[in-house]
Amino acid sequence: MLYFENDYSEGAHGKVLEALVKTNYEKLSGYGSDEYCERAKEKIKAACECEDADVYLLVGGTQTNQVVIDTTLKPYEGVVAATTGHISTHEAGAIEYTGHKVLTVPEHNGKMDADELKDFLETFFNDGNHEHMVFPGMVYISHPTEYGTLYTKNELANISQVCKQFEIPLFLDGARLGYGVMAKDTDVDLPTVAKYCDIFYIGGTKVGALCGEAVVFTNNNMPKHFTTMVKQHGSLLAKGRLLGVQFDALFTDNLYCEIAKNAIDMAELLKKGLANKGYRFYLDSPTNQQFIILENSQMEKISKDVRFSFWEKYDDSHTVIRFATSWATTKEDVEALINLL
Amino acid sequence: MLYFENDYSEGAHGKVLEALVKTNYEKLSGYGSDEYCERAKEKIKAACECEDADVYLLVGGTQTNQVVIDTTLKPYEGVVAATTGHISTHEAGAIEYTGHKVLTVPEHNGKMDADELKDFLETFFNDGNHEHMVFPGMVYISHPTEYGTLYTKNELANISQVCKQFEIPLFLDGARLGYGVMAKDTDVDLPTVAKYCDIFYIGGTKVGALCGEAVVFTNNNMPKHFTTMVKQHGSLLAKGRLLGVQFDALFTDNLYCEIAKNAIDMAELLKKGLANKGYRFYLDSPTNQQFIILENSQMEKISKDVRFSFWEKYDDSHTVIRFATSWATTKEDVEALINLL
Amino acid sequence: MLYFENDYSEGAHGKVLEALVKTNYEKLSGYGSDEYCERAKEKIKAACECEDADVYLLVGGTQTNQVVIDTTLKPYEGVVAATTGHISTHEAGAIEYTGHKVLTVPEHNGKMDADELKDFLETFFNDGNHEHMVFPGMVYISHPTEYGTLYTKNELANISQVCKQFEIPLFLDGARLGYGVMAKDTDVDLPTVAKYCDIFYIGGTKVGALCGEAVVFTNNNMPKHFTTMVKQHGSLLAKGRLLGVQFDALFTDNLYCEIAKNAIDMAELLKKGLANKGYRFYLDSPTNQQFIILENSQMEKISKDVRFSFWEKYDDSHTVIRFATSWATTKEDVEALINLL
Amino acid sequence: MLYFENDYSEGAHGKVLEALVKTNYEKLSGYGSDEYCERAKEKIKAACECEDADVYLLVGGTQTNQVVIDTTLKPYEGVVAATTGHISTHEAGAIEYTGHKVLTVPEHNGKMDADELKDFLETFFNDGNHEHMVFPGMVYISHPTEYGTLYTKNELANISQVCKQFEIPLFLDGARLGYGVMAKDTDVDLPTVAKYCDIFYIGGTKVGALCGEAVVFTNNNMPKHFTTMVKQHGSLLAKGRLLGVQFDALFTDNLYCEIAKNAIDMAELLKKGLANKGYRFYLDSPTNQQFIILENSQMEKISKDVRFSFWEKYDDSHTVIRFATSWATTKEDVEALINLL
Repeated sequence: MLYFENDYSEGAHGKVLEALVKTNYEKLSGYGSDEYCERAKEKIKAACECEDADVYLLVGGTQTNQVVIDTTLKPYEGVVAATTGHISTHEAGAIEYTGHKVLTVPEHNGKMDADELKDFLETFFNDGNHEHMVFPGMVYISHPTEYGTLYTKNELANISQVCKQFEIPLFLDGARLGYGVMAKDTDVDLPTVAKYCDIFYIGGTKVGALCGEAVVFTNNNMPKHFTTMVKQHGSLLAKGRLLGVQFDALFTDNLYCEIAKNAIDMAELLKKGLANKGYRFYLDSPTNQQFIILENSQMEKISKDVRFSFWEKYDDSHTVIRFATSWATTKEDVEALINLL
Repeated sequence: MLYFENDYSEGAHGKVLEALVKTNYEKLSGYGSDEYCERAKEKIKAACECEDADVYLLVGGTQTNQVVIDTTLKPYEGVVAATTGHISTHEAGAIEYTGHKVLTVPEHNGKMDADELKDFLETFFNDGNHEHMVFPGMVYISHPTEYGTLYTKNELANISQVCKQFEIPLFLDGARLGYGVMAKDTDVDLPTVAKYCDIFYIGGTKVGALCGEAVVFTNNNMPKHFTTMVKQHGSLLAKGRLLGVQFDALFTDNLYCEIAKNAIDMAELLKKGLANKGYRFYLDSPTNQQFIILENSQMEKISKDVRFSFWEKYDDSHTVIRFATSWATTKEDVEALINLL
Repeated sequence: MLYFENDYSEGAHGKVLEALVKTNYEKLSGYGSDEYCERAKEKIKAACECEDADVYLLVGGTQTNQVVIDTTLKPYEGVVAATTGHISTHEAGAIEYTGHKVLTVPEHNGKMDADELKDFLETFFNDGNHEHMVFPGMVYISHPTEYGTLYTKNELANISQVCKQFEIPLFLDGARLGYGVMAKDTDVDLPTVAKYCDIFYIGGTKVGALCGEAVVFTNNNMPKHFTTMVKQHGSLLAKGRLLGVQFDALFTDNLYCEIAKNAIDMAELLKKGLANKGYRFYLDSPTNQQFIILENSQMEKISKDVRFSFWEKYDDSHTVIRFATSWATTKEDVEALINLL
Repeated sequence: MLYFENDYSEGAHGKVLEALVKTNYEKLSGYGSDEYCERAKEKIKAACECEDADVYLLVGGTQTNQVVIDTTLKPYEGVVAATTGHISTHEAGAIEYTGHKVLTVPEHNGKMDADELKDFLETFFNDGNHEHMVFPGMVYISHPTEYGTLYTKNELANISQVCKQFEIPLFLDGARLGYGVMAKDTDVDLPTVAKYCDIFYIGGTKVGALCGEAVVFTNNNMPKHFTTMVKQHGSLLAKGRLLGVQFDALFTDNLYCEIAKNAIDMAELLKKGLANKGYRFYLDSPTNQQFIILENSQMEKISKDVRFSFWEKYDDSHTVIRFATSWATTKEDVEALINLL
C-alpha cells in the first residue's frame, strides 16, 4: 500500500526525535518556561527577522486557530475567512464554540481577493444597521491554502493594506507554512509573512514534528495574560518541553525549511508524472498537495493500492482527490505511485 | 412626517393595553406561573389546533431564536438557514454566541428550497470527513421571510418532509406570523404551521403587543428544564404576567389575526398605489413589507417627509428601500404616502 | 389569601401605567433610541448627580447582571461576590453560562466585608500560581442584599477603596435599590451609590415597573458597542419605549423614591407587629424583606392564609421564611397579616 | 540543584520513548484511528477489567477535565467538586469557560465526604426554588487528591452509591492515578476505580509519558459524536499515534504501575527521613506528594539548593510547601534532599 493520504502519516523527523531523546532526562520547568522553549522562540524570531515578535508554542492547528482568534477578537467581533478556509469548514465549529462567527468572502482557488475583502468591509461599515450585525474583527488566510495554492508577496501586501485601512489584524494559518515558503517561484519567505501579518503560525505537526505549532505575534501584540487564557481553553501543556525541544531542533541549521523542500521536490516529481500520463488537475498547486479529477471507477480501482484523500464530488461520474507529499515522502514512493496510475 | 420604517413604531393594540390596565393590581405569581399565562397557552393551542403543544412565552425575537436554537441543538450541531435568514445576518451573532454555527443554503426571494436543503444534507452525511464538520441539527425558516415572502403549504410540506427524512427538527421564526397567515391567497394558516413545524413562534412584538413571542413546541418537545435554561440565558421575566395578559388578549376573539389583517389591507392599498405610479418593486411581497427600487436622489428627497428602511444598495445609482405597514397603519397614512411619492 | 411572597406580585404603579397608556400611539423609533429613553436617562443622571454617566435600560435583573458582567470582564477574569450573592446562587448559572467564574468571599448578613475582600485579592495576586487561576476582575455587591440588609456609606467607601487599589470595577446590583435608599437611618442615597460604584443599576421590576432595570455606568465607562453586545445576548428590546416611558415616569417628581417609601413604611409596621407578638427575626433587616424563624407546624398552618417565601431550613423543626412588602402593599394587608400570626 | 518541584520535570520513561522511536516511520492513519491507539485501548480495558469500557486518549489534564465535563453535563447542569478540587481552583476557569458552574462541597484533606455530598444533593432537590439554580449533574473527585490523599474502597463505594441514588455520574480525575493505585495499604486498584466510577482517566503526563491522559467511560457511556466534540474543543490531535504508542507501551507488561511504584518508594523514603529529622507534616499523604510546614526563613534558605512548590501560607511565619517524587526520582536525589534539610 502506498500512502499519499496526508502529510502527517509518520512521526517526527529524525533530528527532532533525536533531540527529544537527547534531552529526555533533563529536569526542566513546566508550562513552556524551560530553556528549550526560550531557545526555540529566539531562533524563530531570527528566522522571521522579527525582533519585536512574541512567540508562543501550542499543540495543534485547530487549537491554535481557536485560541488565537478567540483571544484576539473582541466579544462582538467575528473573523473573516474565505468560504474554503479551514476554520469555515473543517474544524467542527471550533470558532463558533468560542462565541464568534466566521464571516465569509468568496474564494479563488482557495484564496481571498483583497478587493473583494475591501468591498466586504466597506459594505459592512456603510450599512446603517451594522450595530445589529457581527463586526469583522480579524482577517484569516491560510498559506498554503486548503487547495495548496499560495499568495504572492503582492497579494499579501494588498490584503495587509486593506486590514490596516480598517484597523483589523491579519492572521495567517501556516499549518503547512514550510511547504509554502519552499515552493518554487514563490516570493514569500518567513520574513515576508512576518512583515505583512499581525499574527501567524508555523506549523510543526505537518512539517516534521510529532505535534506543535509556533504562533508568532509580530509586533509585541500577544494578548495580555495569554498563558492564563491558553489554560482556560484547555490548551496548556504541562511538559512544554515537548514543544520547545522540537521547535528548537526544527529551527537549528534551517532544518524546518530543508525538510519542507523534500515535500516540494516530491510533489514536483509527482506533478510531472501525472501530467505525462495525461491526468487532469483540478487546479495548479505549487505545494505538497496535488488535486486531480478522476473518473469514479478508476478512483475505486487505485484505492486498493494507494491511500489518498477524497476531496469533493466533481460531477456525477468524477471525483476530486488529493495526493499529499511530505518531509518523509521518498522518491521510490512517488515513482511507485506514478507507475501505478 | 410619515412613518413606514417598521412595524413596531407604536405601543400595544388598544385591547391589549386595556387588558394590562384591567389586570394591573391583581396579585399574581411570578415567572410565568400565573393564570393569564395558562389561559394564553390554552388559547394558542386551540388556535393552532394542536393539543399536544407546549407553549412558552418569551420577550423578544432574537432572544427567542437564541434560546430555542441553543436549547434544542446538541453541542456539536449547527442550524441551517437561508443566507438571508435573520439569524444569519441581523442578530449580532446571537446564535454563534451560544456556540453554534449558522450553516447556510441559498435563498430565493428570502426562501429556502426543499431540494437544495436535501442536497445540502445529503452532501454533508455522505462526506467521509463529516465528523470534522458541524452537524446540521435544525432547520430554520422565517415566515413571512425577511423579504415579506411566504412559503406555500406545499413548500412547507416538502421542507418538513426533508427534515423528517434526516431526523432534524424544523423551526419557524414567526416574528411576523400574523401578517403571514392573513395574507391574501395564502394556504398556510396557524394549524398548517403547527402541523409541519416541530417548533415555531407567534410574534407579538410586531403584531400588537408591547413585547412578547409565544413559542409553540408542537409535539410535547419542549426541552426538559426549559425554565432553568431560559433563566440561564438571562431571559426569564419575573413578571411573566406582562406576557400572559397580552397573549391572552391577543388570542381572545381572534384579535391577533384581525389586527394583522389591517396591515395586509394597508399593504395592498400601498402596492396598488405604487404600481399605479410606476414604481419598480424589488420583488413581489404578499405581506406587510414592501420593497421598491428607488433612484438615489429621489430616495434622498422623500426621506424628508417619510421614514422608511434602507434595505440594500441595488446599483451605483439605485437603492432598495422598505415600507412596512402594521396593525396600526391607517388609510390616511397610506394615502398620504402615495400622494407624496 | 394574603400575599407577602415577593415584591413583584402586581403590575406597574398607576402613574407608570398611565404614562404607557398616554404615549401608546406615539410613533417612536426602536431599540431604545426614542425620546423617552433619552429623557429617562437624563433624569436618572440628575437623580444620581452624576453627569458623566452612561445610562442603559435593560429588561430584567438576571439579564442585567449577565450582560454587564460579561461585557465588562476580560475573558480570563471572574467576578467576586458574597457566597449569598444573587449571581452566586439563584441565577441558574447565568454568569458561568457566559464563561466567567463567580469567585466567592464570606457573607455577613448578606454583606461582603472590605477587609476580607482585600485579603482575598492580596492572596490571589501574591500566589505564585495565579496565572493558573481565574483573575478577579470585578466586585459584585447587592444593595439591599438578598437578606434585606444595607451597606453603610462608610462600608461602601471601604469596598470602593479596595477596588480602586486593585483597579477592579465595583458593580452594585440594585434590583431593590429604591427600598435601600428609602430605608430609615441609611446614609446611602443615589448620589452616594453613584459616587462609590463604577457600575450599578436601579431596579424597576421590583419597584413599580412592569419590567426594566436602568444600568448606570458612572464614569463614561459603558463598554464600546454595548448595544451590539446587548443584542448578541438576546437582550435588546425592539420597543425600547416600553423601558423609556416607564423610567421617565419613575424619575419624574421623585416617584421612584416615593413609592419605595411605602414598602419601607409597611415593613416597619410589620416588624413592629411581629416583634410585639414575640416572633424571632433571623436578622435585622431595615428594608422591605423581613426574615423570621418559624416552627414548622406553625409555618404549615399560616400557609393556608398567606403566601410567603420559604427561605432556608433553620434546624430540623424550624424554617426561615420571608415576608416582602412592596410599593403596592397596603396597611390593611399588613394589619391582616399581623392579626393572622 | 535538587528538583522536587513536581512530577513532570523529565520527559518520558525510557520504554515509552523507545516505543516512539521504534514506530516513528510507520505510516499510520490520523486522529487516533491507528492500530496503536486500538491496542492501547484494549490493554487499558484489560487492566481495568472493564470490557464494556470506551477508552479515548487526550493530551492533557485540564483539557480532559474540560472536554469530559462539558460533553457529559446537560446545559443547565454544573459539576460538584470539593473546594480544593483542581477544577475548582487551578484550571483558570476552564470549566466555567464551557458554560458550567463548579459547585462545591467541603474538603477533608482534599477529599469529599459521601454524607456531605448526599446532604448537598438533598438540599438542592428539596429546595422549592431549585429551578432557578444550577443543577448538580456530575460529581468530580480526584484520586490521589490535590493533597496526595486517597479514598478507600469503602469511601468510593459510598460516594458512588450517593451518585447512583441521584442518577448523577461519578467522574474521577486520575492525573496521578498510578501513584494512587501503587500506594502502600490502599485497597483501590484500577478495577475498583472502574467499578465505582462512570468515567475516570489514567494520567500519563505525570506518570511516564510526554503527554496524554486515557479517559475510560466504564459502561459504553462515551457521548455520541465524541470525536467531533473533541475537535470542536480544539483538542483533537492529528497524530493520535503520539498518544497511542505511549499508552500502548505504558500498558505493556504492567509498566504503568511498576514505574509508579518508584515514586511511592521514594516518597516513603523521604517521609521517613523528614520524620526522623522532626519535620512537621501538613497532613499524612500516602502518595508521591508530601506537604510540610516550614518556618519562612528556613524555606528561603533551602530554596537555594532545592526546587519545591509553594503551596499555601500557613501563618505569618510559616508556609506549607510540597515535595513531589515521580517515576524518575532516584534514591540519590532523596538522600541528598534529606541531607540538605
